[in-house]
Amino acid sequence: MKRCSSISDGLLDPLFESADVGRRLSDTSLLRALLDVESALAQAEADAGVIPIGAAKAIAEACTSTPFDVAQLGIDAQGSGNPVVPLVRALGAALPEDARPWVHLGATSQDILDTAFMLLARRSGVLMLADGDAAADACAELVAAHRDTVMVARTLGQQAGLTTFGLKAAGWLTSLDESVARLREVLQSRLAVQLGGAAGTLGVLGDAGVAVSARFAYLLDLAEPVLPWHTNRQRVLELAAALGGVVAACGKLALDVELLAQTEIAEVGEGAGTPGGQPHGGSSALPHKHNPVDAVLIRSAAYRAPGLLSALFFAASHHEHERAAGAWHAEWESLRELLRVTGGALARTGSLVSALSVHADRMRATVDAAGGLLMTENVASALAPALGRAAAQALVGACAARALERGATLRDVMASDADVLGHLSPAELDAAFDPGTVLKSAGVLIDRALAAHAGLR
Amino acid sequence: MKRCSSISDGLLDPLFESADVGRRLSDTSLLRALLDVESALAQAEADAGVIPIGAAKAIAEACTSTPFDVAQLGIDAQGSGNPVVPLVRALGAALPEDARPWVHLGATSQDILDTAFMLLARRSGVLMLADGDAAADACAELVAAHRDTVMVARTLGQQAGLTTFGLKAAGWLTSLDESVARLREVLQSRLAVQLGGAAGTLGVLGDAGVAVSARFAYLLDLAEPVLPWHTNRQRVLELAAALGGVVAACGKLALDVELLAQTEIAEVGEGAGTPGGQPHGGSSALPHKHNPVDAVLIRSAAYRAPGLLSALFFAASHHEHERAAGAWHAEWESLRELLRVTGGALARTGSLVSALSVHADRMRATVDAAGGLLMTENVASALAPALGRAAAQALVGACAARALERGATLRDVMASDADVLGHLSPAELDAAFDPGTVLKSAGVLIDRALAAHAGLR
Amino acid sequence: MKRCSSISDGLLDPLFESADVGRRLSDTSLLRALLDVESALAQAEADAGVIPIGAAKAIAEACTSTPFDVAQLGIDAQGSGNPVVPLVRALGAALPEDARPWVHLGATSQDILDTAFMLLARRSGVLMLADGDAAADACAELVAAHRDTVMVARTLGQQAGLTTFGLKAAGWLTSLDESVARLREVLQSRLAVQLGGAAGTLGVLGDAGVAVSARFAYLLDLAEPVLPWHTNRQRVLELAAALGGVVAACGKLALDVELLAQTEIAEVGEGAGTPGGQPHGGSSALPHKHNPVDAVLIRSAAYRAPGLLSALFFAASHHEHERAAGAWHAEWESLRELLRVTGGALARTGSLVSALSVHADRMRATVDAAGGLLMTENVASALAPALGRAAAQALVGACAARALERGATLRDVMASDADVLGHLSPAELDAAFDPGTVLKSAGVLIDRALAAHAGLR
Amino acid sequence: MKRCSSISDGLLDPLFESADVGRRLSDTSLLRALLDVESALAQAEADAGVIPIGAAKAIAEACTSTPFDVAQLGIDAQGSGNPVVPLVRALGAALPEDARPWVHLGATSQDILDTAFMLLARRSGVLMLADGDAAADACAELVAAHRDTVMVARTLGQQAGLTTFGLKAAGWLTSLDESVARLREVLQSRLAVQLGGAAGTLGVLGDAGVAVSARFAYLLDLAEPVLPWHTNRQRVLELAAALGGVVAACGKLALDVELLAQTEIAEVGEGAGTPGGQPHGGSSALPHKHNPVDAVLIRSAAYRAPGLLSALFFAASHHEHERAAGAWHAEWESLRELLRVTGGALARTGSLVSALSVHADRMRATVDAAGGLLMTENVASALAPALGRAAAQALVGACAARALERGATLRDVMASDADVLGHLSPAELDAAFDPGTVLKSAGVLIDRALAAHAGLR
Repeated sequence: MKRCSSISDGLLDPLFESADVGRRLSDTSLLRALLDVESALAQAEADAGVIPIGAAKAIAEACTSTPFDVAQLGIDAQGSGNPVVPLVRALGAALPEDARPWVHLGATSQDILDTAFMLLARRSGVLMLADGDAAADACAELVAAHRDTVMVARTLGQQAGLTTFGLKAAGWLTSLDESVARLREVLQSRLAVQLGGAAGTLGVLGDAGVAVSARFAYLLDLAEPVLPWHTNRQRVLELAAALGGVVAACGKLALDVELLAQTEIAEVGEGAGTPGGQPHGGSSALPHKHNPVDAVLIRSAAYRAPGLLSALFFAASHHEHERAAGAWHAEWESLRELLRVTGGALARTGSLVSALSVHADRMRATVDAAGGLLMTENVASALAPALGRAAAQALVGACAARALERGATLRDVMASDADVLGHLSPAELDAAFDPGTVLKSAGVLIDRALAAHAGLR
Repeated sequence: MKRCSSISDGLLDPLFESADVGRRLSDTSLLRALLDVESALAQAEADAGVIPIGAAKAIAEACTSTPFDVAQLGIDAQGSGNPVVPLVRALGAALPEDARPWVHLGATSQDILDTAFMLLARRSGVLMLADGDAAADACAELVAAHRDTVMVARTLGQQAGLTTFGLKAAGWLTSLDESVARLREVLQSRLAVQLGGAAGTLGVLGDAGVAVSARFAYLLDLAEPVLPWHTNRQRVLELAAALGGVVAACGKLALDVELLAQTEIAEVGEGAGTPGGQPHGGSSALPHKHNPVDAVLIRSAAYRAPGLLSALFFAASHHEHERAAGAWHAEWESLRELLRVTGGALARTGSLVSALSVHADRMRATVDAAGGLLMTENVASALAPALGRAAAQALVGACAARALERGATLRDVMASDADVLGHLSPAELDAAFDPGTVLKSAGVLIDRALAAHAGLR
Repeated sequence: MKRCSSISDGLLDPLFESADVGRRLSDTSLLRALLDVESALAQAEADAGVIPIGAAKAIAEACTSTPFDVAQLGIDAQGSGNPVVPLVRALGAALPEDARPWVHLGATSQDILDTAFMLLARRSGVLMLADGDAAADACAELVAAHRDTVMVARTLGQQAGLTTFGLKAAGWLTSLDESVARLREVLQSRLAVQLGGAAGTLGVLGDAGVAVSARFAYLLDLAEPVLPWHTNRQRVLELAAALGGVVAACGKLALDVELLAQTEIAEVGEGAGTPGGQPHGGSSALPHKHNPVDAVLIRSAAYRAPGLLSALFFAASHHEHERAAGAWHAEWESLRELLRVTGGALARTGSLVSALSVHADRMRATVDAAGGLLMTENVASALAPALGRAAAQALVGACAARALERGATLRDVMASDADVLGHLSPAELDAAFDPGTVLKSAGVLIDRALAAHAGLR
Repeated sequence: MKRCSSISDGLLDPLFESADVGRRLSDTSLLRALLDVESALAQAEADAGVIPIGAAKAIAEACTSTPFDVAQLGIDAQGSGNPVVPLVRALGAALPEDARPWVHLGATSQDILDTAFMLLARRSGVLMLADGDAAADACAELVAAHRDTVMVARTLGQQAGLTTFGLKAAGWLTSLDESVARLREVLQSRLAVQLGGAAGTLGVLGDAGVAVSARFAYLLDLAEPVLPWHTNRQRVLELAAALGGVVAACGKLALDVELLAQTEIAEVGEGAGTPGGQPHGGSSALPHKHNPVDAVLIRSAAYRAPGLLSALFFAASHHEHERAAGAWHAEWESLRELLRVTGGALARTGSLVSALSVHADRMRATVDAAGGLLMTENVASALAPALGRAAAQALVGACAARALERGATLRDVMASDADVLGHLSPAELDAAFDPGTVLKSAGVLIDRALAAHAGLR
């Protein structure tokens, strides 16, 4: 019995990919794309008068209806080092005699594979853009809903002041918006056909080379490049970097969720269930535990994407002469894997954000428990004009130490400190401790982020 | 005596960096940028009515004229983990009493450092753009000069057909143009001020936060972001990826030069001297040897940039809450090093291309020595309509084998082969072997690349 | 119909993996390993008196004979984020009532997965060691056969002196031997069971924890670690680095083959056919062309492994507390992929080396064509005692320039140069130009490399 | 005035390096190593009778007492692409006439640089081993002191059971011990001289090649390799991977410290001061805040090392023929930077661990606050034999839910649950809730880790 695949039988895939995106990246989808490219090439050549129109029709028909054996093509690819050679042979065998000379005319394997990978990027990328927009929309809802939900800001793991959950989520939103916008830009403007022939000169096509190339691009709805890009991989790099940016945005969001979901903090939690019904994040060994599974799986992508990205950048500078001896081959699985984990991270980010439980009361409780210590920056600033920055900070610091020691709030300690009262009236002290004072800009910033998001589409 | 630096005393730097770019990335330049940022912040706050105008003036004066001890600041930075804390302390000490409360007001260390790195990127990037344009211009000259210089195309290390040196250099040109254009775009539109204060809320600035931020951006001629981007590193990633793209373009070019300069090929050579006068690439042990030193040093950057890039992408997804506990600190030297090696690679690419010796006669000799074998794709295509693709290739293959065996040219073997003559007239055979046939599109493509280049500025 | 896998249907796998190694890394093999681990755990617990012996037998039986649905397990894994949770559920369902409480007792998912990956590493690694030894043996044969085959040494792409093909191949051999030895060492001494339970304390096993752990290791023939290593990933890193070293050794060898196989050099060529019969490296478009396909595909691994390795090192430093929130999950596919491409590169290196055609005559012709220029280092050294190093080099350099100019050999030019003859007798000059002089150590070094290889096993 | 360095003036260095290690990696130290190598080479050649003993003495003298201009050497290196060429020239100029022919005899630049980098690795590595041992010793003290300090175990950010701080620190200890042991092994057995001459054949040395090589190794106290390793970089890779392993160990430890030091958890804190006296981790803006500065800076190394490592692995597979055209040059700064950040991380880990404040009372309070929920795994296991695993977990889960709902402890809820009491006596229930039950193995494991540590030296 023929094995289906040497690696994947579906045991780990669902954890790391979106099923829809994954399907569009499969070997079967790659074969489909290779055939679409061969078909479009023939059509473009017929349109340009290079081959008979009947041949193009026969090729299109064979590309659509021939049942190719994916795994056998893979085995046969070993002699030449790429699957296009056996595919063209098999395609030729499926053609009527008079169409055979016209298949793959003037093309080289790299033309077909590069163009097919561009189709794969677009076909999977379209889903990612939708998933990205959905995740950002869900984020925007969180932002709007929690515009005024006060919470602790944390730097280097330490409580450091006040912010709002709306502003934190606005940071996620802006990062998603920026990275998805860049991905959209790359998908829309940088995916291009590759057509150069064996030497990258369009040589066999004679006078018709450029016309065929233009028509080829038109038919596949891809850009026509200034030059064949067989050894100029800037398009691949821009795509890869955009994917890496998206994963970074998702990864930061997931990290925050995981940190906020820590048992001791518990200011957010992942949603209560997956469609299948199984309790989400449940632990069979520990019934009360609720693991942030989505965040964890998104974060796994953030560990993997940079290495995949580096492989593509490594390879891109090593395309010898008119065809790379290995660097090009290294791209195939690396780029596909990067597309795959990005798609997985993005889809999962959407579900994570959509189902996120935000515990505003708990956030408030954390703020209250800090007893005014989160306002020290503001209070010291209020004292600075009179005392100077250093003395003001020292005074606040001394009061804070006393507050921690006595279990009192900083507000109360300062209200009974003679030095403080010599410079701030009780009303001024109240103002300095009012969270509203330090959150004035937060609302404005949030509104800007929401407006920017709304303006994107 | 105080050491100047623990690592670099200039022994290796000149090999890997452009002196001008390097200088703009030095610790001293970073300190300058930090001071420029503090100064602009004070001015912006004065303009917004937050601090006295006199204080801003005093701060600007202190930033300009105080002689700070760079190395001491570094030593003092250890307590807080960043150099802004001791710098602000030292800056305060240099101020008149009444200006002290107003320095660094409402800012956090990350605001100053992030913004300063944006300045460093712009200040060094401007030189890189100029170097990139110069390298591309030099490439364009090569392209134009060698538009019709026929040479062998090579794929997977094997001679594979004909191309022109103009087209090969056009590939370098397009790759440089695309990557430098992307870098320009990022430098122009994605460098932004960072201002958020301790919690990323602009909290201490109260109502004036957004106004100060806008003015701060205006004064430094950087973009104002929608939100503070302290934990949204998309800007850094876009910059890093653009730098990586430039290095990849330079690396591919240098690889081609190195391969073409191999003793056995010798179709190009590096220029005859450096300004200093020392014979370029000379080997003291081997007097006749001429090493492609520029290509080698450019290639070294191509080995290093992807790893630096991966560190930045890895770090970008790990910015906890409102300030990263390590990921941000990892950016400083990684980004600077990436800027540095990119600048070095780009400047050296310019000198390499400008001084490149192109041996067109040698290229022609290589083509001639191949005795028609480089036209096989075209000849087979000429036979395909009559014989079918597979049979045509088999016939040409048999003739090629005979030619190699007899030391004859493929043209001569085919001209005396009955099977061939049954399908192609002597005139058709001549046409099939005419290099001009397969280079028709090459000229058009070259002209497009030159036009695209000309249209860039 | 249920899809088999979202990604791989065998189109690209055969290019990048060894079928045998790939099979041992598949999801099905992973499932097998997970079951072997659960079975061994139960047996170890029975042996330690923790669970009834009958339960262990029932568990072993269920692990062997239950037909699990791999893809369904994958789908069910999404709720918990790993496949062990649904597997234990399914395994429980397959057990008789009285055995159910005893399955997976005291273990956590990570225990099972980590230990299973160690089994995967060993099971695939054993094949790699055999492939590595075979490749090294084939290399050793090349070394011995070409101990005295003189060829040009090349540095920075330039002809730089004389060496032997035996010494070059000895460099490949030593690199393979060293890297495979390190891999063997890691596979033999660093693969260990992981058993810690939910908190890494072996808590549920009470007094029996350590005894169970020891027995568990014994049954699986893996090492018993000092401590559970759930968050100490040194073992994974050592394995990954060893794999990366092997790929680097293969990649360097393949690069040399590709460079030596260049049309203009043609000192080696890849073998004439693959078992399947298809002409190896044939190009359908270019019948005379002979691509170094094995070298190209090996090199593709060399572009990919470092990025995969970096992901594992990134992740290893990010294992939070008693279980990582993402870093661990990122290991699974990264480590497997690294094992896979290493296995592919190693197997292909074996076939490449075994079937390599070495064109000693062509090597000799290249040496002869250099007309003595490759002996300049030696000739200058012969003159140095009399003239000083700099003057000697200058004199040889001047002669070399004259030789190149006149198309004469350096030997002839020097033999008629008065300055030279003033310091070297004709016999001394002959000696200085004798290749044997400079290859005296080469033979000794080769013999050392062969002896070291022979001593390895 | 001549600039000292283009990049570093000490502003950032102290944050990321150990001053002592950094000093041993500086350009000045590299120059020292280059001179030591030239000196040892001459001595080895004199010992082997290849050059006059007087020449070796003169060379040693010149290497010791000549004041070379580091920065000028760097500038002069540009023509040849490495600093050895100008150094040999300058060294020659410093020699008496009759010694000049004998300097650098039979060597090539790579011999000198590779061997010098091995010296740099050893000289800096020795300090790292000492720092690593000190850090591990400090860890071992923590382990011993907190062998029985009960604390919460956390997985995926969630409280998951009980452990001891001793066991957690034992995990740090074992990871440090393993990684430092591997580094020690590499430093002791894999650092070797490189000597091959221009072609890697020891050609110029004639019969004496191998003898010189052996003596050269002896004089420098480095290993003698089987073959010159100019294009076999396994030694560099093993060193790099060992360094990467050390950084990973440090990074995991620092991550745990940062997480435990979070304001809401506060179970550990960084020490109270640096020798200089400045409050450690103090924030000028937030007087009460105490940043985990050491952990943050250590973590920054963990973000950087993997990318540096990947560059070295990438380069290692790209050493063409007898000398790499770029891959070798990429090693210099990458390896040095990796040594540098490893040294920095290791030294800082030592200070972090030595001064760590462990708040055992706070750990206990966290455990108590969980009200028995951390014992669920054990309690469910106690019920499993009677109920089956699934039903036992469901019962415990229901009780846990009730406990959380009512704010009661799980122990109390279960003690009043009829189902529970039907299967467990009050004594059995008490036993199931006794932390001692689940920590029996922890102590044994800790003792093993301490014994393994004690046995290392």
